[in-house]
Amino acid sequence: MRPVAVAGIGKTAFGAFPDHDLRSLAVEAGQKALENGHASASQVEAFYLGNFAGPSFTGQNHLAPYVATAMGITGVPATRFEAACASSGSAFFHAVSAVGAGLYDIVLVVGVEKMTSQPTPKVTEILAGAGDGCGEVRAGATFPALFAMIARRHMYQYGTTREQLAAVAVKNHQNGAKNPLAHMRKVITMEQALAGKMIAEPLTVYDCSLISDGAAAVLIMPLERASEFTDKPVRVLGIAQTSDHVALDEKDDITTFSAVKTSAAKAYKMAGVEAKDIQFAEVHDCFTIAEIIAIEDLGFVPKGQGGPYSLAGGTCIHGERPVNASGGLKSKGHPVGATGTGQICDVVEQIRGQAGERQVKRNSLGLAQNLGGSGATSVITILGAA
Amino acid sequence: MRPVAVAGIGKTAFGAFPDHDLRSLAVEAGQKALENGHASASQVEAFYLGNFAGPSFTGQNHLAPYVATAMGITGVPATRFEAACASSGSAFFHAVSAVGAGLYDIVLVVGVEKMTSQPTPKVTEILAGAGDGCGEVRAGATFPALFAMIARRHMYQYGTTREQLAAVAVKNHQNGAKNPLAHMRKVITMEQALAGKMIAEPLTVYDCSLISDGAAAVLIMPLERASEFTDKPVRVLGIAQTSDHVALDEKDDITTFSAVKTSAAKAYKMAGVEAKDIQFAEVHDCFTIAEIIAIEDLGFVPKGQGGPYSLAGGTCIHGERPVNASGGLKSKGHPVGATGTGQICDVVEQIRGQAGERQVKRNSLGLAQNLGGSGATSVITILGAA
Repeated sequence: MRPVAVAGIGKTAFGAFPDHDLRSLAVEAGQKALENGHASASQVEAFYLGNFAGPSFTGQNHLAPYVATAMGITGVPATRFEAACASSGSAFFHAVSAVGAGLYDIVLVVGVEKMTSQPTPKVTEILAGAGDGCGEVRAGATFPALFAMIARRHMYQYGTTREQLAAVAVKNHQNGAKNPLAHMRKVITMEQALAGKMIAEPLTVYDCSLISDGAAAVLIMPLERASEFTDKPVRVLGIAQTSDHVALDEKDDITTFSAVKTSAAKAYKMAGVEAKDIQFAEVHDCFTIAEIIAIEDLGFVPKGQGGPYSLAGGTCIHGERPVNASGGLKSKGHPVGATGTGQICDVVEQIRGQAGERQVKRNSLGLAQNLGGSGATSVITILGAA
Repeated sequence: MRPVAVAGIGKTAFGAFPDHDLRSLAVEAGQKALENGHASASQVEAFYLGNFAGPSFTGQNHLAPYVATAMGITGVPATRFEAACASSGSAFFHAVSAVGAGLYDIVLVVGVEKMTSQPTPKVTEILAGAGDGCGEVRAGATFPALFAMIARRHMYQYGTTREQLAAVAVKNHQNGAKNPLAHMRKVITMEQALAGKMIAEPLTVYDCSLISDGAAAVLIMPLERASEFTDKPVRVLGIAQTSDHVALDEKDDITTFSAVKTSAAKAYKMAGVEAKDIQFAEVHDCFTIAEIIAIEDLGFVPKGQGGPYSLAGGTCIHGERPVNASGGLKSKGHPVGATGTGQICDVVEQIRGQAGERQVKRNSLGLAQNLGGSGATSVITILGAA
């Protein structure tokens, strides 16, 4: 594998945008990434689109050439990747692998989702498509219900508390309030978080990520060519995607995601680093419990210590190891197919020192963790200063 | 790129199978391909799934790990590729590229679609998701309507006749009748084809492919390792995927598919062959007119001569250049996401000399053409004896 660099990033705001359709959001992010990387559409040799459920949300399928041609990209491979909430993380993984292996030089990866045009019960039903339709979903489980079971078990097994879950929400809302592109820029108190409307016990509305529209794009190329395009290249040091069972009942232990562990181990090995070396991270906090499990599975803290560590402030922007300085899925928003590339954009901004009020101090080695479903897909990316 | 070989193939029957869900079809094909290639699930280093609209047809999404884990494949990348009717052709393209570039050795590619659980109007609506929802589809066009416009224009521009279209249907039904896995094993006469119920003038029911359930899988690996697994490896000599506009009205000329031309040119170049060297082909006859255009765009006949050539028998099993000896989408069936890998399986069977009554005589160099939508995606694969 030759070294691969991110040369450009582009994000739309995340939120509810009745006047923007899926394609216009994807095109906006894609064009921003090209501009940021000083590249033109005609230079793009392959187009990778991450999208979870565009056809179900909007009726439009065959999305990769649909978006690519609207940007002026034709005559090259244009492919959609679907891996639930890890769709654009997966697209990015395959794109980096292809560039690293020498198949292409200039590749554009766009993640997008348009969710708010459907009523919430329909959104919940579509999201449940990432669970097991023959088992847990048929039995009535929604994703909040699945993660509520995970949280309950984590509380039982490790003594994790409601306050520790709420601390994740409070911290991510605090960070998101500083992010001009975040969906919900609203600081909340611990009292508010604990008193939130119950969605699936023990998870309140403040433990759940948002239903959002949005897109995020990343322009990649071989490191050796990046200086032609940008003076701020960021290197992809390690990346891995692995998979596991979709149904929760098929897992040995629901308080840990084995795919996160296997993909993290591969990515650490590829980057030649250990968990302790990672200075900051964007993790997949689809629910607050998911962030707590993530920092455990990634090896940032010992198993079972994710809750106390979060409550003690270890993951705050100015804490020992900042997690979700962007606001995370919780506050920044979770347009499913855009989340993976969105995380990459946020880590790149930090490494470039362009994160404004959200800037972390130790910013030369960051990690993005993108999770699909209740852990059936995991993509881990480690990025560093080039 | 190191040489890549197909070491195993596996197909389910194509048809309407109320007792088989999407996953069981995919698993059946995948396991057959592993058996055919004498490999085990634990040897698979990456899993590529081609599926167009499983979530819309069945409600189930996140399909790659869902199918992979049911086969015992975990801890590796499991990814779904969507490119309309070229979904599994695209998955195969990306898989071959990855193995060729040295990213993996043993890779399983499965294509699957489960369509018949929905009523036909709903199926038509879901298929229309591969068209432009902001333009042609909003205006009421279905895929039969889009290809009817293409046929009308081809008739106007080149004098193509209803008899020439019907000749494609008659030939493909004749071939499909010899295929034990085909959906519709029924010989039809020219009179029947011409008198078929009109779907979208000038296309009758006999000009349209079938709505089917089914799956097809291909096991690939570096050529240098294939002899460990099979004594009948088939080499991937050339492969390319390219894209074009989704909407028909954005194309300069609707009687030709530019993505087919650009992908064919790349695949020919990679294989070091010319159109005239191709001995037989499986092409994407979603409608009879599509087969006529395919043999023109692939360079088998001069532009405008696809109709007369078909009527004269040039594409029959014992003709000059057999096309769709399997029966094609027309008679074999068109479970959308399974069509691309299904074509690869059929070309491999021919090269191995295992096509039974459908066996073509000159069988050392074959081509598969998989089309997405009305030409927005094209994947061309050239296979030869190893």
